Amino acid sequence: MTLLPLNPAMAATFPPPVMEARRWLEGATFPEGRPLINVSQAAPVDPPPLALRQALSDAALSDPQAHLYGPVLGLPALREEIAARWSVAYGGEIAPAQVAITQGCNQAFCAAMATLAGRGDEVILPAPWYFNHKMWLEMQGVRAVPLPTGASLLPDPAQAASLVTARTKAIVLVSPNNPGGVEYPAALLAAFRDLARSRGLALVVDETYRDFDSRDGRPHDLFTDPDWPDSFIQLYSFSKAYRLTGHRVGAILASAARLAEVEKFLDTVAICPGQLGQIGALWGLRNLGAWVAGERAEILARRAAMVGGFTALPGWRLLGCGAYFAYVEHPFARPSDELARRLVHQASLLMLPGTMFQPEAAAEGRRQMRIAFANIDRTGIAELFTRLAGVTD
Amino acid sequence: MTLLPLNPAMAATFPPPVMEARRWLEGATFPEGRPLINVSQAAPVDPPPLALRQALSDAALSDPQAHLYGPVLGLPALREEIAARWSVAYGGEIAPAQVAITQGCNQAFCAAMATLAGRGDEVILPAPWYFNHKMWLEMQGVRAVPLPTGASLLPDPAQAASLVTARTKAIVLVSPNNPGGVEYPAALLAAFRDLARSRGLALVVDETYRDFDSRDGRPHDLFTDPDWPDSFIQLYSFSKAYRLTGHRVGAILASAARLAEVEKFLDTVAICPGQLGQIGALWGLRNLGAWVAGERAEILARRAAMVGGFTALPGWRLLGCGAYFAYVEHPFARPSDELARRLVHQASLLMLPGTMFQPEAAAEGRRQMRIAFANIDRTGIAELFTRLAGVTD
Repeated sequence: MTLLPLNPAMAATFPPPVMEARRWLEGATFPEGRPLINVSQAAPVDPPPLALRQALSDAALSDPQAHLYGPVLGLPALREEIAARWSVAYGGEIAPAQVAITQGCNQAFCAAMATLAGRGDEVILPAPWYFNHKMWLEMQGVRAVPLPTGASLLPDPAQAASLVTARTKAIVLVSPNNPGGVEYPAALLAAFRDLARSRGLALVVDETYRDFDSRDGRPHDLFTDPDWPDSFIQLYSFSKAYRLTGHRVGAILASAARLAEVEKFLDTVAICPGQLGQIGALWGLRNLGAWVAGERAEILARRAAMVGGFTALPGWRLLGCGAYFAYVEHPFARPSDELARRLVHQASLLMLPGTMFQPEAAAEGRRQMRIAFANIDRTGIAELFTRLAGVTD
Repeated sequence: MTLLPLNPAMAATFPPPVMEARRWLEGATFPEGRPLINVSQAAPVDPPPLALRQALSDAALSDPQAHLYGPVLGLPALREEIAARWSVAYGGEIAPAQVAITQGCNQAFCAAMATLAGRGDEVILPAPWYFNHKMWLEMQGVRAVPLPTGASLLPDPAQAASLVTARTKAIVLVSPNNPGGVEYPAALLAAFRDLARSRGLALVVDETYRDFDSRDGRPHDLFTDPDWPDSFIQLYSFSKAYRLTGHRVGAILASAARLAEVEKFLDTVAICPGQLGQIGALWGLRNLGAWVAGERAEILARRAAMVGGFTALPGWRLLGCGAYFAYVEHPFARPSDELARRLVHQASLLMLPGTMFQPEAAAEGRRQMRIAFANIDRTGIAELFTRLAGVTD
């Protein structure tokens, strides 16, 4: 059946990579003793800790507001808690009116970008990029201008400056990076902020994985600048820190004037964020600091196991490793998208090929793979390397 | 502070009416014995019934999947349940692959429309319209072409046909109507389907309020046509039937090919719908049929009280009344947006002015008001009329 009418911008947008990868599993059988290891999506495998589940369960039963509409920009108590904690953690001044709650961090990105760029505009994205960022821009008719990062996976502000045109509206960074795993140095983020400010652009930084940054203290100084709201927009997710992926809770930190525009988008697309998820996020902020520290330590141990494993694995090259992801070069002749399907059958491994994170024209993507290692424990990581060692082209 | 960069399409979009109306309450004081009656937003005041809250509470504690990512298009069990029940209720064939779950019905609209129309395209909306429909089109650069409905509030297919151009992609109807309260006759919907089909357009029907339709049996025959997926798209909400507004659960029924495009949008904006809300919607479908029937009976009784009240109220004219809304003409010289603010202070009443539902150029909006009467019980409705009788210009 021909699908008509069809918005050409939507037709040109590629299908969701994670769903496409899931479809590779259809019809696949996994031998006894070699079950599937799924490192395709950054997704906690276990539910939130019992105390948080209990808090959600209690709210569902006893708090009528947990089931009813709330304000478009989120629960005031949650906005206040974020503002207070962020002000301390980032050493800056952040007001509750500069915090909006969204239905997950993807929606935070879409809402922020909708206020910045429309059809015909340009947004600079370091490549490899997070595919949903590219998809939103594509379906909005905004040109994603790739900023290649080379083997370091770190974007270069001077190279970015050379890509700025009269249509450029924003630079989008992800740190710690998805898919690259690298943690952007504070000085690099400051240089991008300076570039954005000097050219009248927004600097959007997606910090979904900041709770698993290996560095102690604040990861950057952007919020210490009292003028931060003029150019900086931070995106955050509660999905990873508290394992609330199924509740869809994220946040945008930006100027109150920007959030008045964001409010139009969120009212139209969401009406309000889910109430129980917000209750869970607030409870987590207030009660799970020590628990998240333990989670971070475990993920840093997994990261060390990944670094060790790739050091010992002939042919493969680890480009970046941190937070939830390892980003690697494979040693085979076949392109990564074919290799990814082959790994399902040959090794019961599901991971995403670099082609899903790179511009179609970029040759690098065919050599690269992303491994969402935080999904599996150290026993699983050891098994991953045993299997990778046996893979043939 | 000047907000830069700013997407001009977003800047041109009006701010959320419900939030604007809430701001009218700031600083307002309500005398002893005359508390605020808020009939601005269609929103259940009470939480879901205890058994549903208990089911949600149990799932939060015991079902790990309730907290984790699920499929982009929703829980398979919920999609199957909807397909089976809708097939019976509407007398047609609806497959699970023709059902997608969304984070509320507003998102269902945005997702469906994103697959249909982009900047420069046109979509026909009967006026008065649901403001979030207009807002999405505006921020996407799609032209909302108003189809005036006159005193009957029923759109005319022949008049709609005269508005179709080469850029027209869809006709959007809401039945039972928001804000008008009118229930569109089955023959009228069939005529619009015929028009859409003959001109290669999509007919999008938002049936958020269908559980409170006063007519017994199915409200239309669109699903009885085996070719329904070629042109018909239905939108639905679980927010009103089960009082799940704070969980954000809606649905799109469309061709599987259309839903493959919808999946791109939902993956990018949502990743997946909230899991607990979906669990609640499924539980409600399976267990709350009799309870919803009771809710409907109560709302029909409130509707009768509204009809009776306006019949006896001098000067006011009831244009439409059904489901959650009464849409009325007021007798005063001042325009409705001024009157709405005056009602807050003079009568402790919050309702939305017709200007929020009509094109700016339309004179009708200044005479009209929307009253979300389903929010208040019959005692509240009696009090509403006592207060309206005392209002002066």
